[in-house]
Amino acid sequence: MTDPALEEDLEDALAGPAAVDGVAVPGIRRARAWLTRAAEPGSVALWRWVDDVGPVAAVRALRAGTAPERARALVGVRAEQDASLADLRRAERCGARLVVPEDDEWPALPLHALTVATHTDGDGEGRRDRTTALVPPVALWVRGDPPLEPTVDRSVAVVGARASTAYGEHVAADLGAQLGERGWTVVSGGAYGIDVAAHRGALAAGAPTVVVLACGVDRAYPAAHSAVFERIVSGGGLLVSEWPPGAAPHRHRFLVRNRIIAGLTRGTVVVEAAARSGAQATARRARALGKEVLVVPGPVTSAMSVGCHELLREQESGARLVSNAAQVVEAVGSLGDDLAAPERRPTFPRDGLSDLARRVLDACPVRTGVSAERLAAVAGCDPLEAMRVLPGLEVADLVQWTGTGWRLAPPPRTGRGG
Amino acid sequence: MTDPALEEDLEDALAGPAAVDGVAVPGIRRARAWLTRAAEPGSVALWRWVDDVGPVAAVRALRAGTAPERARALVGVRAEQDASLADLRRAERCGARLVVPEDDEWPALPLHALTVATHTDGDGEGRRDRTTALVPPVALWVRGDPPLEPTVDRSVAVVGARASTAYGEHVAADLGAQLGERGWTVVSGGAYGIDVAAHRGALAAGAPTVVVLACGVDRAYPAAHSAVFERIVSGGGLLVSEWPPGAAPHRHRFLVRNRIIAGLTRGTVVVEAAARSGAQATARRARALGKEVLVVPGPVTSAMSVGCHELLREQESGARLVSNAAQVVEAVGSLGDDLAAPERRPTFPRDGLSDLARRVLDACPVRTGVSAERLAAVAGCDPLEAMRVLPGLEVADLVQWTGTGWRLAPPPRTGRGG
Repeated sequence: MTDPALEEDLEDALAGPAAVDGVAVPGIRRARAWLTRAAEPGSVALWRWVDDVGPVAAVRALRAGTAPERARALVGVRAEQDASLADLRRAERCGARLVVPEDDEWPALPLHALTVATHTDGDGEGRRDRTTALVPPVALWVRGDPPLEPTVDRSVAVVGARASTAYGEHVAADLGAQLGERGWTVVSGGAYGIDVAAHRGALAAGAPTVVVLACGVDRAYPAAHSAVFERIVSGGGLLVSEWPPGAAPHRHRFLVRNRIIAGLTRGTVVVEAAARSGAQATARRARALGKEVLVVPGPVTSAMSVGCHELLREQESGARLVSNAAQVVEAVGSLGDDLAAPERRPTFPRDGLSDLARRVLDACPVRTGVSAERLAAVAGCDPLEAMRVLPGLEVADLVQWTGTGWRLAPPPRTGRGG
Repeated sequence: MTDPALEEDLEDALAGPAAVDGVAVPGIRRARAWLTRAAEPGSVALWRWVDDVGPVAAVRALRAGTAPERARALVGVRAEQDASLADLRRAERCGARLVVPEDDEWPALPLHALTVATHTDGDGEGRRDRTTALVPPVALWVRGDPPLEPTVDRSVAVVGARASTAYGEHVAADLGAQLGERGWTVVSGGAYGIDVAAHRGALAAGAPTVVVLACGVDRAYPAAHSAVFERIVSGGGLLVSEWPPGAAPHRHRFLVRNRIIAGLTRGTVVVEAAARSGAQATARRARALGKEVLVVPGPVTSAMSVGCHELLREQESGARLVSNAAQVVEAVGSLGDDLAAPERRPTFPRDGLSDLARRVLDACPVRTGVSAERLAAVAGCDPLEAMRVLPGLEVADLVQWTGTGWRLAPPPRTGRGG
């Protein structure tokens, strides 16, 4: 019952390069598509083995029954099945694709944190036998037009309670909008409450936003959010999943999925969380990945802020209080920061700026230039004040006049294309 | 025009002991009364000199014109005046007294932090010539019955904005009440907003509360709070001031007064503060005195919480987030902590308690025993649950059955009378 073309595609892939013009060859993509259905993601043992032998050899060994015992145990009877071509076609029909590490659009740098976490997890023979861990995905199903890597290059996770309050939703939406206006992408789940509020805020600002699902990208879960998900896809945002099309949102998948939200982003903002909720786990995970843990406080009278305040009270959580998007951007490394250099350059001219100039600078979008009036509105100052500080910022190579508006100047000495 | 009895009283005081049965002799009290009117408090130079030569010799030297030049300059023409007896009588008429360092009720231990701050302020000849500093008071005018030292022994400053919100006032009142129920005294100014809300909360709990005024204890400032001040005095609380009866609330006196609020207490809780308000100064001062800086967060959408969030974002402020009175008490050193030992004993049996037992323990008052039902209500648990953990707490010598209710057991090995 196997699809005969699979073995041919794999054979072809072994004969040539893994990618041509920045795009993985069909056999590689098909091998990884097969793997996303054959094994639940999050297995350290399987990911390490695939990483060692390559996806094509791994799939061939699993199908031939010659794979290591642990890998065979994880895959089980699915070794004899093949829906890889059907999955790739099903994805295509809903405007989705499988993005693999061999593609240029693979977000290798952000996800590198997961690789590091995996490799430092155990030592030699003493590696722990865990079924889920902070392991990278073998591939990501992506629905939406923009390439994945540039979309999540400057991104922040905004997460929180499903049973959020009006305050939490207001703050999440405001963060989503303000981050979007500053050229930062929101990454979150698709749940009720804080997740969807953050996405709606980004949508309101006309900014891309990324939903990481615990089911197939062709499914809307919860169903009530199908319209929002459609707007996200048509608005330049993405739906992302480790599971193939049609996969159901099983409960354990949400926990496995959460590491992708942390992994893709530069930091995680927790907006509302109940006492002893998943907020601590979220913070620990982000911190383990070397990402910023940012927490929005709330009224001490609100049960939905208790988890946030717990995080801020725990020294070891490494959590930092943030009140607005400017503080989030400041924490995750704003303009001029290179992805590879987590620390801000100490001599960066920004350091000497006045409070007003800094606010105007923080208000500048990354992509499309906007008017000084708009900058002033975001920065909370008079348009004349904004116009007074903009020339100085331009001389310092911090902002650019596009001919129609002001935007951030590209960071100096970057090796990355725009 | 000088009162002839002053010189006689001073002469008498030089001949005998400074205090008899824990009460300062009349000449000492009169000398210090004279000093509180002769010089504005907060002068490092004057306080050091009085500390060196003693109050009686200091007053005699000032009146004879033989005092050091700097002290003479601070006192000026007031050296020739004397209202000390009139001030003491005026205080007596409104139920007040002058508490001096020679009295047993002088809060020497809490105020010791101010002495330390003064002595480490400069070095030898290089002492800075500052008019105000973290210098102890030469005496304190106190209105209200209870002795000062036991009243402020376990006390916390609750301070914040005058232009507070309903949220801030609710939290301050709740803190005041909950601290009072736990046997802790609130210390604050008498201002609108957070100050008076904290006092009202303590009053509602039937607990003593202390108002530190920037004017005479016979004056109500603001006048709108005269009824509250009367209720505080009749309810076992105190009005305290460095200035003699009749003194006006000059603007600069509030800043000088603030160090007394920090000095008398084990920690300062900031409830609401606007951006760039006095909150940072409050925190720095408390920290300089080695006292805890505790901050209540609020909605990030509230302008009156911006200063609180700024404090929590500054690593160097040393500020800790608190959400309720139990966390305040935990931070300032709860039961069993000795005043002289700022660190909690590591082997204290409390460490091994369950979450429930800890909550019930935190709910126990220090003085009057209460029912298990009352403890359960404060601890937020079922009365049966409270009754289940109380015997264990009793065996561990953490709580006591008074015959009519439960209260905290006195700390072990304490040298202080109850």
